[in-house]
Amino acid sequence: MTLLNETHDPARKSWVGSANGHTQFPIQNLPFAIFREANSQTQWRGGVAIGDFILDMAKVAKLNVFDGEAQRGAQAAGETSLNTLMGLGAKTNSALRLALSNALSEGAALQGALEDCLIAQTDAEFNMPCQVTDYTDFYTSIHHATAVGSLFRPDNPLLPNYKWVPIGYHGRSSSIDVSGQSFPRPIGQTKKPDASIPDFGPCQRLDYELEMGVFIGQGTQLGERINITQAEQHIFGMCILNDWSARDIQAWEYQPLGPFLAKNFASTISPWIVTTEALAPFREAFTRPESDPQPLEYLTSEANTQAGNLDIELSCLIQTEKMRQNNQAPQQLSQSNFKHSYWTPAQLVTHHSVNGCPMTPGDLLGSGTQSGPQADEAGSLLELTQGGKQSLTLDNGETRTFLQDGDSIIMRAHCSRGGAVTIGFGEVVGTLLPARP
Amino acid sequence: MTLLNETHDPARKSWVGSANGHTQFPIQNLPFAIFREANSQTQWRGGVAIGDFILDMAKVAKLNVFDGEAQRGAQAAGETSLNTLMGLGAKTNSALRLALSNALSEGAALQGALEDCLIAQTDAEFNMPCQVTDYTDFYTSIHHATAVGSLFRPDNPLLPNYKWVPIGYHGRSSSIDVSGQSFPRPIGQTKKPDASIPDFGPCQRLDYELEMGVFIGQGTQLGERINITQAEQHIFGMCILNDWSARDIQAWEYQPLGPFLAKNFASTISPWIVTTEALAPFREAFTRPESDPQPLEYLTSEANTQAGNLDIELSCLIQTEKMRQNNQAPQQLSQSNFKHSYWTPAQLVTHHSVNGCPMTPGDLLGSGTQSGPQADEAGSLLELTQGGKQSLTLDNGETRTFLQDGDSIIMRAHCSRGGAVTIGFGEVVGTLLPARP
Repeated sequence: MTLLNETHDPARKSWVGSANGHTQFPIQNLPFAIFREANSQTQWRGGVAIGDFILDMAKVAKLNVFDGEAQRGAQAAGETSLNTLMGLGAKTNSALRLALSNALSEGAALQGALEDCLIAQTDAEFNMPCQVTDYTDFYTSIHHATAVGSLFRPDNPLLPNYKWVPIGYHGRSSSIDVSGQSFPRPIGQTKKPDASIPDFGPCQRLDYELEMGVFIGQGTQLGERINITQAEQHIFGMCILNDWSARDIQAWEYQPLGPFLAKNFASTISPWIVTTEALAPFREAFTRPESDPQPLEYLTSEANTQAGNLDIELSCLIQTEKMRQNNQAPQQLSQSNFKHSYWTPAQLVTHHSVNGCPMTPGDLLGSGTQSGPQADEAGSLLELTQGGKQSLTLDNGETRTFLQDGDSIIMRAHCSRGGAVTIGFGEVVGTLLPARP
Repeated sequence: MTLLNETHDPARKSWVGSANGHTQFPIQNLPFAIFREANSQTQWRGGVAIGDFILDMAKVAKLNVFDGEAQRGAQAAGETSLNTLMGLGAKTNSALRLALSNALSEGAALQGALEDCLIAQTDAEFNMPCQVTDYTDFYTSIHHATAVGSLFRPDNPLLPNYKWVPIGYHGRSSSIDVSGQSFPRPIGQTKKPDASIPDFGPCQRLDYELEMGVFIGQGTQLGERINITQAEQHIFGMCILNDWSARDIQAWEYQPLGPFLAKNFASTISPWIVTTEALAPFREAFTRPESDPQPLEYLTSEANTQAGNLDIELSCLIQTEKMRQNNQAPQQLSQSNFKHSYWTPAQLVTHHSVNGCPMTPGDLLGSGTQSGPQADEAGSLLELTQGGKQSLTLDNGETRTFLQDGDSIIMRAHCSRGGAVTIGFGEVVGTLLPARP
């Protein structure tokens, strides 16, 4: 459990003016991304968001103005991907956060030097924050699991293992890209319930999934287990994740070994990774309904029970091609909160490594679709349209059961709690293109 | 479909004497691995097996004795991992094979230069041949799928999609290591059928799976599909793969999203990758029983039908700790053949990319357990012991249902067919250690 320190102090202001007003990136946030000047061939490198700007960590590292661990962290943050920084572990990352927070504070002696390291976010483009070494997707919303289970298995929606095992499966890292990703509608096999042979063609039930992503920091060797009391030390930070899904392909292919081509054609993440330490003020107790079993001992710790959940508000919006043509803003489809998750990030990390599976800096763990308890808090169209039976009517009169070509899905996330300054994850945008011939 | 050329000529001999007698590595094979001097800190680099020796490709590249594409290939083959070589594609790899075959042939002018590039295999140690970018495991033996299905789902062993969809799921790349891997018995949740709550502790039903691995060569971009007529151009080569499995963990966790911790604690591959071109003489027709559906059009091509299957003989052996102590040789558990596979490697590659999923040089596709049609051709203990009900008695009197601590599993593979010289894949050895406290 990360303690609060001066980097979380709501009174702390930055000499970067835009960080002090209405922004997702106040000095209490300080998330990392990989960026370069837009439409340039300059080197990708790490940056830290502050107000409307990015602090160029390659430049900061060269200044050599930080001490010891913080300088070591700055050096790694300036590389072309964040894997090295992630692997340095929680202590170094904490030292770097403190150094950055101090250097960006009002009145800091380093203001003069660091002013030359700022670039406007609007002048930048983003790359994947790291090489995703392995990608695992969990299934941590019991509301999503129950709703989807009732569509795929009406007689048996929530399987007996759900309340004991943090259910997860391996995903594909090669098709993960950063916000702005567009991809053709996938093609594949599907089968109508009463047909004797499958169809082959473009997916007809293309969906999004509103998820959070957890990036592993310090890794482990094969055979090593991560105790739940240490699990958060192995989490570098979190991003927003849209795990696109082809529901008709999924229904036909997924038994007995799970989803495969229904999931691996595209997944989109937000460029910014908000660190574990920045999220400390937004923790809350991990609770279970009294009628539910308590987690097994290896998934239980005092700190996890007291403050294992994260209060992260999530929203999902759509902008159709027609809306873009008419300059209409995206329309909200649903909102939810990560605190509804049935398992905490620490539990996911501990469970993943309990068998000795090696964790690597840059591993991405998806939370699974974060649907809330209410029907309108669903994190997928599958749920919002009851399996495609009930179409949604948008404000401009268009209707949707599943996505149509040209649709963009936008996901946003932020944390705001009494006493703490609001911090944001930015957003993740992805666009569905027509199937290729 | 790769055509036969002088590199396959059974009459071709090498100036490396041990390549001409009883060997897995005649001049017709020329597989690649990553090696260095045993117990040294020298640089890992690529090598090619010839008889009892390894041709050091870093040294060969420096000699600069090959032309054009072949030299480009040699340069890549000398790197610390084979990913670059894999990505150069079939044409470059074919040019390198021809150049190596000529240079290692009896009477070759390059003999004098290349003699200095040889190191005895017994003096070498091996590393992973490449960084496994993504790992997918298929399920291509219908005999395995039926046998295992009847244990997990007695009323419904072979699901309706099996004969249409090359069933696969994503695996974990971080726990794959090269032959010689040892790993602690995994720990996890299991549940007895009549228990109301799960148990937690060391796996009691640890198993191996006898598989072949397919390494992707030239990759694709997101959205691109690999036509079945082009699929083999994207296969660099094949290795032997032991996909260790924790059956009791699997039974409890695998629904609805497939195997996870039951599979990701360890997977072991042979160091040598036998190239697609070396396998050309061992092809045979891809056939289906008349009562089975023919594959959909995207999984069908003339070349695949004529010669899509590979005749690779497989065997699996055990050496217990007691056998090692008494200097007893490993005992064979079963043998099988990759030609029983229900889907060909080309079909796996085409299916994997049909939805636009990007393929990357170094991706590994497991074939799934290669059980043959006879009960004694089963590629796992789960099958050989009928789900642990029927124990095996070894020649030294020990019995096994599942693996015991200290057991080593050895898998071997080779190709031998009338008119062609026998080529081998070497072997893959892995050892189960006791669970960590």
